[in-house]
Amino acid sequence: MSTTATAELFAFQRDTEALGQISGRLGWDQETVMPAGSADQRAEELSALEGILHARRTDPRLKDLLDAASPANEAEAAQIREIRHSYERAVKLPESLARSLAALSSRAQGIWAAARAADDVKAFLPTLSEMIRLKREEAACLASGGDLYDALLDDYEPGAKAADLAAMFDRMRPRLVALRERVLDRPAPEALTGHFPAEMQLRLSREIAEAFGYDFNRGRLDLAVHPFSSGSGQDVRITTRVDEGDPLNCFYSTIHETGHGAYEQQVAPRYTLTAIGKGASMGVHESQSRICENQLGRSEAFSAWLYARLSREMTLNIGSARDLYRAVNRVTPGFIRTEADELHYNLHIMLRFDLERALIAGDLEVGDLEAAWNDRFAADFGVAVPRASLGMLQDVHWSCGLFGYFPTYSLGNVYAGCLHQALRQDVPDLDAALSQGSAAPATAWLQEKLRRHGALRSPVETIRTACGFAPDEAPLLAYLEAKFSDLYAL
Amino acid sequence: MSTTATAELFAFQRDTEALGQISGRLGWDQETVMPAGSADQRAEELSALEGILHARRTDPRLKDLLDAASPANEAEAAQIREIRHSYERAVKLPESLARSLAALSSRAQGIWAAARAADDVKAFLPTLSEMIRLKREEAACLASGGDLYDALLDDYEPGAKAADLAAMFDRMRPRLVALRERVLDRPAPEALTGHFPAEMQLRLSREIAEAFGYDFNRGRLDLAVHPFSSGSGQDVRITTRVDEGDPLNCFYSTIHETGHGAYEQQVAPRYTLTAIGKGASMGVHESQSRICENQLGRSEAFSAWLYARLSREMTLNIGSARDLYRAVNRVTPGFIRTEADELHYNLHIMLRFDLERALIAGDLEVGDLEAAWNDRFAADFGVAVPRASLGMLQDVHWSCGLFGYFPTYSLGNVYAGCLHQALRQDVPDLDAALSQGSAAPATAWLQEKLRRHGALRSPVETIRTACGFAPDEAPLLAYLEAKFSDLYAL
Repeated sequence: MSTTATAELFAFQRDTEALGQISGRLGWDQETVMPAGSADQRAEELSALEGILHARRTDPRLKDLLDAASPANEAEAAQIREIRHSYERAVKLPESLARSLAALSSRAQGIWAAARAADDVKAFLPTLSEMIRLKREEAACLASGGDLYDALLDDYEPGAKAADLAAMFDRMRPRLVALRERVLDRPAPEALTGHFPAEMQLRLSREIAEAFGYDFNRGRLDLAVHPFSSGSGQDVRITTRVDEGDPLNCFYSTIHETGHGAYEQQVAPRYTLTAIGKGASMGVHESQSRICENQLGRSEAFSAWLYARLSREMTLNIGSARDLYRAVNRVTPGFIRTEADELHYNLHIMLRFDLERALIAGDLEVGDLEAAWNDRFAADFGVAVPRASLGMLQDVHWSCGLFGYFPTYSLGNVYAGCLHQALRQDVPDLDAALSQGSAAPATAWLQEKLRRHGALRSPVETIRTACGFAPDEAPLLAYLEAKFSDLYAL
Repeated sequence: MSTTATAELFAFQRDTEALGQISGRLGWDQETVMPAGSADQRAEELSALEGILHARRTDPRLKDLLDAASPANEAEAAQIREIRHSYERAVKLPESLARSLAALSSRAQGIWAAARAADDVKAFLPTLSEMIRLKREEAACLASGGDLYDALLDDYEPGAKAADLAAMFDRMRPRLVALRERVLDRPAPEALTGHFPAEMQLRLSREIAEAFGYDFNRGRLDLAVHPFSSGSGQDVRITTRVDEGDPLNCFYSTIHETGHGAYEQQVAPRYTLTAIGKGASMGVHESQSRICENQLGRSEAFSAWLYARLSREMTLNIGSARDLYRAVNRVTPGFIRTEADELHYNLHIMLRFDLERALIAGDLEVGDLEAAWNDRFAADFGVAVPRASLGMLQDVHWSCGLFGYFPTYSLGNVYAGCLHQALRQDVPDLDAALSQGSAAPATAWLQEKLRRHGALRSPVETIRTACGFAPDEAPLLAYLEAKFSDLYAL
């Protein structure tokens, strides 16, 4: 009987996964090719599909099948674990609350965008307040008496605890602040400037994506306002953006999304359309994009290839490979998270993490949020936020109800630091390939050690297995301190 | 109670329509942007969605709601009629048969494509034989003792009867054969030749699509191997193809698909995502593409604009507007339906219609099909079919199980003839606009008389209401005889 139940459970889940992929593809379509006038109808289409998905994720038959299922191996056990986790989470949430959250987050994004455009915090506060009320209600349903923020965090990083992250971030923060201050005391390196035609940027982006292991036979590269990666298995699409004055923005956006996309493409084909046929968590996903973008893509070896490759296309204002290495690692104080360099990025995240934790805990009122943001920004970045669009109104996340998402970005950076240390130990001649424009030895290592396993193991276990040690912040900090000491002659 | 049932029925149907739109969008994706290596996963995704759609179309609650529903007006009555028709058809078909047909048609397309590439009829016959067996079984389930072919035809052209179509086609055929013989006795006009860059063809295609009423705010134009139109309501996408040696192929494919696409876009917005928010039938749809492509697009007035417009882009081998009018209406005997001119096209259809009717009736064995095809082709076209890829293996339809589809193409031409006669009567100065590159007066008339009503009325009633008379073949034949007598100085 239990073999039948297991087969039935997996067959049911396979269709759910397939429908989930369709939902993701509609998201891709919306951000890349959808006509402007199709938005209202698209919202109805997505809502109909989400209704089907919600009904499947909370289907009462799932409970019986989960109870009767008996896994034949580790992969089946992991699938059952994932399906049970999804089911138990989904049934804890009353449908009325789920609908209220969906409706509010759809409405709130428009209100947030208008408030940001007008630099008008007050226009957003009532909506944000309502969002926090609903998210606290959601967290209370999910937490079963535990920490509210942890319950939300679990959606993006299963098993992670906010208290652990807070302790780690508190260890990192003073060292990052100290390092940025030393760096900013030094003269800034020259930036890459000029006119770089869109066609050339996209052509090189395709080369670069392939160099970082992206398979165009099962994917494609398109333009989007905010680059993203979408899909799992055989159809994983990435996007990039083009600014004709700033090709590095395009190339490093491409490498970042290639990290995400190649991760999904390299999950073992036998896991496709199963509950583990995807990345292990948001944090592990971000580790794959970040190691490609930063530790590999912004390495001296890869910069040297990029310098030679770009020089074949046009005359550069930058005179040497070393100077391009300095240009791709320029540290500049700035207000916007998505434009931040390696040193500042995590400080942006820690600020948001502490504030959203306080909001969810009820320790911070939305009316006090702007002051709290600006105080913290002045403390960590040494400058005053001039207006809310450069401060607390800059990110879309809170208007979408994505509380608990921000810390996974920094966790990804921490994981990337660990993976990079292990990778360099296992593959000592990595720079030889990178300086020829190939990350193949690195992506082969990542595929073998981590990517092919998908969500077989918990996020922490995924990283630990790949690295051979338990992850912490030390490798990332050591990497940053060494790299920027060299770059800025500290 | 019945008001509640009506509202519940329409809400249920709205989600079904939305899911149907998603399925259509996946079809668009597959033909335009999907990576080559995504096909297997896509098949699973589509199958999962089709499973959901089938379950909704046969949901037992539908019967109760249909019985209890009471329409408040004509539009609601039409929606209930459409939902009932879909439900009653769907429940007549055993799920096992539906699955067998889906599996066979998926497999058969590959076998057909290989057989066509190898010109090997025998390799396709066992599959075709199995397809016909299943289609006869399907027809028997649907026909309730009536004509088998009519039961299949009803899927594409609700209410149409094969015997009526056969009688009409038999009246048309000798006049078309006679006309083509007289035309082919005359010297052939000069063809448009040269190198026409893809970029220019696509740029003009966009202009032309807009000239024929296509709204790019709720649609887009892409490339596809076999051009098609996809979607209803706010998201209707069209495709075209580019051959740099033959811009007319591109322009007239664009106009054809614009006719389909603008029809869907111009259905009244209040019908969007309802059971009548779409074209009335395949035949009525084809009338919209054909009147745009042929009666309007291949008119002397529009040819004159096209001559001037193309001449602004490059020097043409053709020396006058009149000569371009002759070139866009060149009659050439050929084996391939999709490349056929206005005179030959319906002869291709009639051949297929008679043969597929005989196959479904059991009056023709698949083993005798090739000989029957070739005999009929020789009789109507005056030439022997040299190989099966130019004969009975040329079309994909039978391998997909699309029996009953072919006659709707010619029915569309007949309807286009009727609409064109009524249009010219109501809008006498149409040529003034067409010669300026605008079909706006024509598309406004079509929108008002026909398109905005969607599937409110039966196909025949849709045409009759628009024209003010019951449709028959006389206007089409009169139009063809007048046009080609003038063009070829008969």
